[in-house]
Amino acid sequence: MTFTPPTADQRFILDHVVGIGRLAESERFAAASDDVVDAVLQGAGDFAAGEWAPLLRAGDTVGARWTPDGVVMPEGFGKAYRDYVEGGWGTIGVPESAGGQGLPFALQTAVLDTLGAANMGLALAPTLTVGAIEALIHHGSPEQQALYLPHLATGEWTGTMNLTEPQAGSDVGALRTRATPRGDGTWSIKGTKIFISFGDHDMAPNIVHLVLARTPDAPPGTKGISLFLVPKYRLDAEGNPGEANDVRVVSIEHKMGLHASPTCVLSFGDHDDCVGELIGEELGGIRAMFTMMNNARLNVGLQGAQVAEAATQAAVAYARDRIQSPRAGAPSRESVAIIEHPDVRRMLMRMKAQTQAARALVYFAAGHVDRATLGEPGAQARLDLLTPLAKAHGTDIGCEVSSIGVQVHGGMGYIEETGAAQFFRDARITPIYEGTNGIQAADLVGRKLAMDNGGVFAALIADMRAEAKDTGLVALIDACDEIGRSLLTRDTDDRLAASYPFLTMLSTAVCGWLMERQGRIAATSEGDPAFLAMKAAAARFYVEQIVPEAMGLKAAATAKAELLYSVGPEMFAA
Amino acid sequence: MTFTPPTADQRFILDHVVGIGRLAESERFAAASDDVVDAVLQGAGDFAAGEWAPLLRAGDTVGARWTPDGVVMPEGFGKAYRDYVEGGWGTIGVPESAGGQGLPFALQTAVLDTLGAANMGLALAPTLTVGAIEALIHHGSPEQQALYLPHLATGEWTGTMNLTEPQAGSDVGALRTRATPRGDGTWSIKGTKIFISFGDHDMAPNIVHLVLARTPDAPPGTKGISLFLVPKYRLDAEGNPGEANDVRVVSIEHKMGLHASPTCVLSFGDHDDCVGELIGEELGGIRAMFTMMNNARLNVGLQGAQVAEAATQAAVAYARDRIQSPRAGAPSRESVAIIEHPDVRRMLMRMKAQTQAARALVYFAAGHVDRATLGEPGAQARLDLLTPLAKAHGTDIGCEVSSIGVQVHGGMGYIEETGAAQFFRDARITPIYEGTNGIQAADLVGRKLAMDNGGVFAALIADMRAEAKDTGLVALIDACDEIGRSLLTRDTDDRLAASYPFLTMLSTAVCGWLMERQGRIAATSEGDPAFLAMKAAAARFYVEQIVPEAMGLKAAATAKAELLYSVGPEMFAA
Repeated sequence: MTFTPPTADQRFILDHVVGIGRLAESERFAAASDDVVDAVLQGAGDFAAGEWAPLLRAGDTVGARWTPDGVVMPEGFGKAYRDYVEGGWGTIGVPESAGGQGLPFALQTAVLDTLGAANMGLALAPTLTVGAIEALIHHGSPEQQALYLPHLATGEWTGTMNLTEPQAGSDVGALRTRATPRGDGTWSIKGTKIFISFGDHDMAPNIVHLVLARTPDAPPGTKGISLFLVPKYRLDAEGNPGEANDVRVVSIEHKMGLHASPTCVLSFGDHDDCVGELIGEELGGIRAMFTMMNNARLNVGLQGAQVAEAATQAAVAYARDRIQSPRAGAPSRESVAIIEHPDVRRMLMRMKAQTQAARALVYFAAGHVDRATLGEPGAQARLDLLTPLAKAHGTDIGCEVSSIGVQVHGGMGYIEETGAAQFFRDARITPIYEGTNGIQAADLVGRKLAMDNGGVFAALIADMRAEAKDTGLVALIDACDEIGRSLLTRDTDDRLAASYPFLTMLSTAVCGWLMERQGRIAATSEGDPAFLAMKAAAARFYVEQIVPEAMGLKAAATAKAELLYSVGPEMFAA
Repeated sequence: MTFTPPTADQRFILDHVVGIGRLAESERFAAASDDVVDAVLQGAGDFAAGEWAPLLRAGDTVGARWTPDGVVMPEGFGKAYRDYVEGGWGTIGVPESAGGQGLPFALQTAVLDTLGAANMGLALAPTLTVGAIEALIHHGSPEQQALYLPHLATGEWTGTMNLTEPQAGSDVGALRTRATPRGDGTWSIKGTKIFISFGDHDMAPNIVHLVLARTPDAPPGTKGISLFLVPKYRLDAEGNPGEANDVRVVSIEHKMGLHASPTCVLSFGDHDDCVGELIGEELGGIRAMFTMMNNARLNVGLQGAQVAEAATQAAVAYARDRIQSPRAGAPSRESVAIIEHPDVRRMLMRMKAQTQAARALVYFAAGHVDRATLGEPGAQARLDLLTPLAKAHGTDIGCEVSSIGVQVHGGMGYIEETGAAQFFRDARITPIYEGTNGIQAADLVGRKLAMDNGGVFAALIADMRAEAKDTGLVALIDACDEIGRSLLTRDTDDRLAASYPFLTMLSTAVCGWLMERQGRIAATSEGDPAFLAMKAAAARFYVEQIVPEAMGLKAAATAKAELLYSVGPEMFAA
């Protein structure tokens, strides 16, 4: 399986969806000139194709392994990761003040997109480091920033997010890990965390765990949570990794996929000797967590685009290669490549359209990270609104497209050696972690729709309506507008019962808007004719076939919860 | 994980969808009295729950293993299978003339449903045997029937279907396995077959391979194919398994799921000593193959219902057990079981509704096997029309429901030990084998719609329209009618490009019709109140929320192929 970086689509979306040219007009992002953007995309593509993609299968078949001395990555992963650090790929979007290159987050997103499309498991390590960087930038003390940021910014050290405990999954407030003052300004951390991605590995000389814990006398629930920085190795006087910090990898999970990413159970303070530093204010943990998680959510949405891209490339290659049956209705009785059969081509077109749509949606949100950095009015609020869409719908698309990828391969798709099954298995975690997609939908209809009394939502609707041309797309936007406004006034149960179908409708409207625009631009642009023709076709397919599907969700998005509660829990087992 | 046989739903569907009472009024099925039906469902349920369900995990984690001496099944599978044979569960639907109990195929379907919901991998063995039985009943000589049928009818010997070769998948006509006369009325078989489910195992003393092969001077393509019976062990003078028949298991596939079912590469005639018998006429293989495959297709559709049932039971149990977060908007701040959260309950309701719909669809088709047996006018034609719907849509539902099952489990769903992931992996083969769902869609819009100049399709539409009440359902039926009729006159490419969306619309219309009827009956029936309330709710959910979704496919089902071919194959890689 060869991997071709989706550079042309990335550049097109950066230009026409993100508006990276406008970002580059600012002093802050002046470095993001046309040449630099091209060089970054090209360089990241070459690196990912050359060094990361070849490790994809070993990540699945060998996988990360637990040993008493820690987690061991498959052969080649350490070098591939360190070359990523050496190449400066981790520093793209980190502010210059924090030791980075200060380029737009949207460009960093494109780099991570390429890396993850080549090797999603390995790309999860830097994805999580970004969360640690953000938490330190926004909530760390100058000393903490000085000690840790330079190493995290390059990726030399990696970061983790420690939220979940056995009894505290979606309900973070139920966590029990404790932090007690040691009297010297540091804290003693004790507790067990589960589902910690890259909680341990052997690719970096230190790992910076960001750990949510409860301080003495803290109130119950999310209000009683504080965020701590817990290094795997404590820093010595020179700031280098020194003695081990009483963080133990109890085990790693036996997962359905994403085997290259070790999912750890971490035990902090087995010997009462785990030292942590408070990040930000005591009891300010939940705010800091959202700082970490918001970008993490975008990056998980991006994983949807990553795995969709990889699955699509594999399916297209197989369908062009596999000869089977003459084309129905054609004069020739010669067997043809299966890409010539209409239903196979429909599947491939859907894969292309959905992949491009997921990419556009996530990059669009990522661009608003940069606009917010520039202080553009409304940008942060729009980012907040788009985040649950990007996370949930991006990952839903990853799952759908990787499933179609298996189907295109026929019986061979079910055989592990072919690789299509790996994408299908790998993708399935993404609608779950970093807040399940159900949680995203609840966030959308609860917090996000209500922002500014519905004004943030109304502004998005207005922007879409101002540009959309296709009558089906306009109808979908109108339906979203109507349903979104009505959801604001509905009771909690009804709102939540309708949340997921509504999220899908609104996400599809945003994708339809962005795809229609791209199709229009592609029709009149100069450039690679093959890419532009495919873009125009994918955009048309999206608007003509996928947008109407979302209208089919209107009944569910306007239904009441009453039906769901017309039967008791025990009746579901009847 | 405990397994509860879905006996109540099976009985309800047999009564109100299949009309088993009417079948029992015939002489042929007089044995299917109320008491017997209940006893069969109950007995199969007890057996499946007691003996087959406990082996589910070992089927996945240990799996079937290849050895130089043949395939070895996990511990306990041999006994579990032989107890199935002993219990007479294989003989339910086999005609008395062939050594069976002569009960309706629909009742046999219910038994297989239960067995497969308990252990889908193991249940695939008898599923395939049914195909061999059908082929022998319809095309075998009296001698062949006498020698083989009694052993196949009980399941003492198992059957296989050998169609696929590396270059001949969906295009069966491309197969190359050769059969040459040995001069004594038997044939020498030589060739390699792949993807042979239960092509070898150690649960039965003999295996009867039905093998498609090409005779000397046969014309190319499907017209040149004949069907041969090739036993693993040749029968001795007493009709008992004797010397080995030069059939070698080259390897078994390393699959994403369904590990309990060995998928074999079989080599026939390595030593030019593989003896086969012709079944039916020379060059009549393709007709015989359809006899085998039609029921096999229903049974694969049934696998969709099986895995959906199993996944739903697991998700409901988990959601009732797992405590997480207080219910939003509720006065109490106590954490609740996640089944109380609206979006989780929506997922579970969808799982219930889709599972019941898949079951109703497949049983409805199975009932027409019996009506055809009774010679009811139009029954065979309706069965032919329903078969692609049952196969494709049943398996699509299995995939969807097992995916939701993973989601309900949250992070635990991605951990293999939980079991939810197994259903997700197991289900994914079903849209592929026994004719991919794309092939089913092509069969629907090609062959099946055109039957009797569209009369068979029109009759189904008329029956649905006569009973359907909900305006959304009526609108879907109308849309199917219009699109179905127009597809008849469209060119091949357009018809095929629209085939899959149309198949989903029509399948949903049929399911909606059958679910609405069941909901109506449940509201006025006496019986288990919990079951009836759940049935009514699931039916309402199906009609109110799932039916409208299918209307969203109208654009795709009426689209032209032109867009798909507006770009060349190479552009898909751009």
